[in-house]
Amino acid sequence: MPIYTPPLRDQQFVIHELLGAADTLKAMPRYKDIDADTINHVVEEAGKFCAEVLLPTNQVGDEEGCTYDPATHEVKTPTGFKEAFDAFREAGWQGLAAEEEYGGQALPHLLQIIFYEMQYSTNQAWAMYPGLTIGAYECLLVHGSKEQKDLYLPKLTSGQWTGTMCLTEPHCGTDLGMLRTKAEPQADGSYRITGNKIFISSGEHDMAENIVHLVLARLPDAPQGTKGISLFIVPKFVPEGSGASATQGTRNDIHCGGIEHKMGINGNSTCQMVLDGATGWLVGEPNKGLNAMFVMMNGARLGVGVQGLGIGEVAYQNAAAYAKDRIQGRSLSGVKAADQQADPIIFHADVRKMLLTARAYNEGGRAFAYWVALMADQQIAGATEEDRKFGADMMALMTPVVKAFMTDNGFRTASDCLQVFGGHGYIRAAGMEQFVRDSRINMIYEGTNTIQSLDLLGRKVLMDNGARLKQFGAMITSFIEEYGTRPEMNEFISPLADLGDKVTKLTTELGMKAFGNQDEAGAAAVDYLRVVGHLIYGYFWAKMARVALDRVKADGSKVDPFYVNKLAVARFYFQRLMPETAFHIRSARSGAKNLMELPVEAF
Amino acid sequence: MPIYTPPLRDQQFVIHELLGAADTLKAMPRYKDIDADTINHVVEEAGKFCAEVLLPTNQVGDEEGCTYDPATHEVKTPTGFKEAFDAFREAGWQGLAAEEEYGGQALPHLLQIIFYEMQYSTNQAWAMYPGLTIGAYECLLVHGSKEQKDLYLPKLTSGQWTGTMCLTEPHCGTDLGMLRTKAEPQADGSYRITGNKIFISSGEHDMAENIVHLVLARLPDAPQGTKGISLFIVPKFVPEGSGASATQGTRNDIHCGGIEHKMGINGNSTCQMVLDGATGWLVGEPNKGLNAMFVMMNGARLGVGVQGLGIGEVAYQNAAAYAKDRIQGRSLSGVKAADQQADPIIFHADVRKMLLTARAYNEGGRAFAYWVALMADQQIAGATEEDRKFGADMMALMTPVVKAFMTDNGFRTASDCLQVFGGHGYIRAAGMEQFVRDSRINMIYEGTNTIQSLDLLGRKVLMDNGARLKQFGAMITSFIEEYGTRPEMNEFISPLADLGDKVTKLTTELGMKAFGNQDEAGAAAVDYLRVVGHLIYGYFWAKMARVALDRVKADGSKVDPFYVNKLAVARFYFQRLMPETAFHIRSARSGAKNLMELPVEAF
Repeated sequence: MPIYTPPLRDQQFVIHELLGAADTLKAMPRYKDIDADTINHVVEEAGKFCAEVLLPTNQVGDEEGCTYDPATHEVKTPTGFKEAFDAFREAGWQGLAAEEEYGGQALPHLLQIIFYEMQYSTNQAWAMYPGLTIGAYECLLVHGSKEQKDLYLPKLTSGQWTGTMCLTEPHCGTDLGMLRTKAEPQADGSYRITGNKIFISSGEHDMAENIVHLVLARLPDAPQGTKGISLFIVPKFVPEGSGASATQGTRNDIHCGGIEHKMGINGNSTCQMVLDGATGWLVGEPNKGLNAMFVMMNGARLGVGVQGLGIGEVAYQNAAAYAKDRIQGRSLSGVKAADQQADPIIFHADVRKMLLTARAYNEGGRAFAYWVALMADQQIAGATEEDRKFGADMMALMTPVVKAFMTDNGFRTASDCLQVFGGHGYIRAAGMEQFVRDSRINMIYEGTNTIQSLDLLGRKVLMDNGARLKQFGAMITSFIEEYGTRPEMNEFISPLADLGDKVTKLTTELGMKAFGNQDEAGAAAVDYLRVVGHLIYGYFWAKMARVALDRVKADGSKVDPFYVNKLAVARFYFQRLMPETAFHIRSARSGAKNLMELPVEAF
Repeated sequence: MPIYTPPLRDQQFVIHELLGAADTLKAMPRYKDIDADTINHVVEEAGKFCAEVLLPTNQVGDEEGCTYDPATHEVKTPTGFKEAFDAFREAGWQGLAAEEEYGGQALPHLLQIIFYEMQYSTNQAWAMYPGLTIGAYECLLVHGSKEQKDLYLPKLTSGQWTGTMCLTEPHCGTDLGMLRTKAEPQADGSYRITGNKIFISSGEHDMAENIVHLVLARLPDAPQGTKGISLFIVPKFVPEGSGASATQGTRNDIHCGGIEHKMGINGNSTCQMVLDGATGWLVGEPNKGLNAMFVMMNGARLGVGVQGLGIGEVAYQNAAAYAKDRIQGRSLSGVKAADQQADPIIFHADVRKMLLTARAYNEGGRAFAYWVALMADQQIAGATEEDRKFGADMMALMTPVVKAFMTDNGFRTASDCLQVFGGHGYIRAAGMEQFVRDSRINMIYEGTNTIQSLDLLGRKVLMDNGARLKQFGAMITSFIEEYGTRPEMNEFISPLADLGDKVTKLTTELGMKAFGNQDEAGAAAVDYLRVVGHLIYGYFWAKMARVALDRVKADGSKVDPFYVNKLAVARFYFQRLMPETAFHIRSARSGAKNLMELPVEAF
């Protein structure tokens, strides 16, 4: 069974030393009572839950998968999933970041994201059940009526009921404008909803009393396309009573018609949902459903990005342990373990390269994701309008990068860490190949990584003439101005500044090209996102190096090796990973013609 | 079920128009009767077998896997595997390239490699049974005694018996010097062999009368390490009689102790083999077993490289078909299919980028692999000593590149092609995720891709001061001299020449660094192999572009669109894929320090 130790030291480094999160949060009225001890305590307890309760369910969940009973339309989750969810619910974890008025603890989203990271390290498939529940909670919190909030939010906060998002249909996923599910208004103000949904994660299971489906459907005579989509609550059981005292009520005409057999995340039920005149209630305004659902999708995209980090971390931990244990061959630069028949493979340069790749992406991703989580808190709880606007701008800009860059890196990392195991990594029992399979979905769901790239370059950068990107660029510039004169910072700041210049030029060039032909944006977007991702990671790695250098300077020979090692990984990042941008800049600049000239029939 | 059409047009282009293989082969005495028609006929029939017989067994093989009976130690292969093997055997396919004196057809290795490509496209797990049989055949052909050859080769040629290579033990894979299996000489000239082997592909199954295991073991008082390893034939049933008329005989004390549950290639039995005083016979000289086994391993490495191509091809075909069929969203540059609710996703630039990546790697890899196969023929059948030496030198140089570069590309390609399917690619029924899982092993077995990289840079390039690399470089130079003045060739020749210069400089630089510290070679090897791989693909792509340009010039407006399309893919390769070398050259040049400075305990 794979091992996992919550990466507390590195998490605390990012939270406190890099981001100064406790002070930042304390300055927001909503989090005025937060302090470093509270943060550390929650992270530690969350880590314990993941390592002790979730981790043992991960492999069995993969092996058993979910089982569907066509007679009852019910889904049985793997052994241990329900017990883990009961423990989670009883400990109050579901409501960690939820409002107090609905029974939540109103803790920062930062803590939720940190908890996600560790959940995804220890059981991604399981973590999707409570994760989607949070998504449904957030969507209703923003767009639900008072009655809807009073009825559903307490149950979602407690974990008594769980949530889903029902978007995809067999013929449409990316292009929701084509969706066909229909909603007919009824005399009592409810709607009769009919249609077929697919790929509904957590759509049916045996871990909660009720399931609250948020369903996209069309009203009669709704405009065609995305402007004719409305959002509905369709509970599995129609609640009886109102507010927090409501009970589960009678079975609604929505059921699971089957589950998918997938490459991975087998412990999560991916359901075909059949709505056969199910009773639903409109959420928000008619025909504005897609906007409402985007609240949930944006939250989900951050979560998915962190799935890349979570799997990257656990894959790294296992590969590092194996590399120190497994002896095979001698180091090229001479015998290292003379008392053994061979040297541990950690002494081979390329094994280190794979491990350091994982580590540099993980630690860079952690810094980035936690900062974005702070921006999520600032967006809703910032002290001033300006703060909240800045949080919202950064969230909008960074969401596609978190989702795509971190999940691409997570899959690469999982595959590299499997490689460290050699043939043993290909055997199921080692658990490494499950990480590769599970992490592969992250590049697809909640909008494929291509869609994220188009969102970044098209909507988030070019559409506002790079205004949000310039805001982030200003942070980089001010960091460079502050530390650029320190000679020991040069190896980090010089490549960062250079890449910053290149991104500016590239953005301008692509903007001009795309103005003439939108395909130019489509042809460059995926490369562009990888380049921007490295600019962001470069910024956070340079900042982390600065913190580490200060500690090395202050503590001299007594310095915690943690900081010396952080500098080594930072150097690796700048010398071995960031240079990938040289490739992607060339590819992005090469234009659309080399993609578009081949006629369709020649494929 | 995935589709597959043998890529006959492209195969014929490479065989005839690019390589002029029929004439090249005809000039070798062994192949004096070969002609283009024979080649085309064999390729067509082989393609039919793969598409009609093998393809339908691929998904069922993955779903069912092999089953092991602990009571009898027997392994049952998936439904349809035995019938497919019977059909294969009856058609005489097993002996395609085997010597006539043992019942083979003595056709060129080129044809065997082409057949492999199509077998791997349609069922890699199945293809490993006959593939390893060929490996055992080739090893015994070179190193077996006359009696051994007379006894075993006819049965291996007919496919009546199959073969394996038993190298790996639980504690040693890459480092065979540590192997512990023992061989004790008996009075009758045989040996009693005792030990445990793991990861033995095709080690036990129900498709043949007998299994011929080639086993590495140590003689009593053998020197330690790799110089104390001998090779033995250990048949599952000890044959009775001699020569071609031998029968299966009595059960030997070697049995399967269990099979592995793996990420993929589930239809192939990956066996733990227990040798409990099994009877074996020495092959070749004592303590020279590893050299003998290398015959088999080198052949296997070429085969594994072609597995990358085979899976890349079938993944591409399915993704291209899906992209033309699936409608979703509108093209960024305007509506393309006005009669439909959305445009086929083939009109999206990034979908094309993924498809063209697959295609450029597949077609470049096909040209490269077929040329290497011709070198394999030249190595054994070349008309002059000089020809044979050249073939051997090229084989030695190229084997690690075929194995590592083509399998890395195959895995990337399979993953990209899954991505084209979006969420549907993650569902098992579509078959795309099986390609990703199956192709992942290719980067590991027969020597991990890291080992291949060390072999290339250390043994094949630096150890002979780049002499073999210079031989290949001379081919590139002469091509550039011949066509470099044609303006329409500039877009292909200019980046090729530039990369050639860079490889020369990089090789010199790494040679000097590694002279001082061998870790410098280890730190650069994987990046170096990718750079060399692109130099090779660049050469073949430029040559293919030259052929296509000549046809466009000659045929004018009546030209077969095949050639116009070939030029488009060539352009894509040079503009979108070769630039990756900018990254890898920087990474390779960054040195060992950024990998080695982190102390072991910090991982």
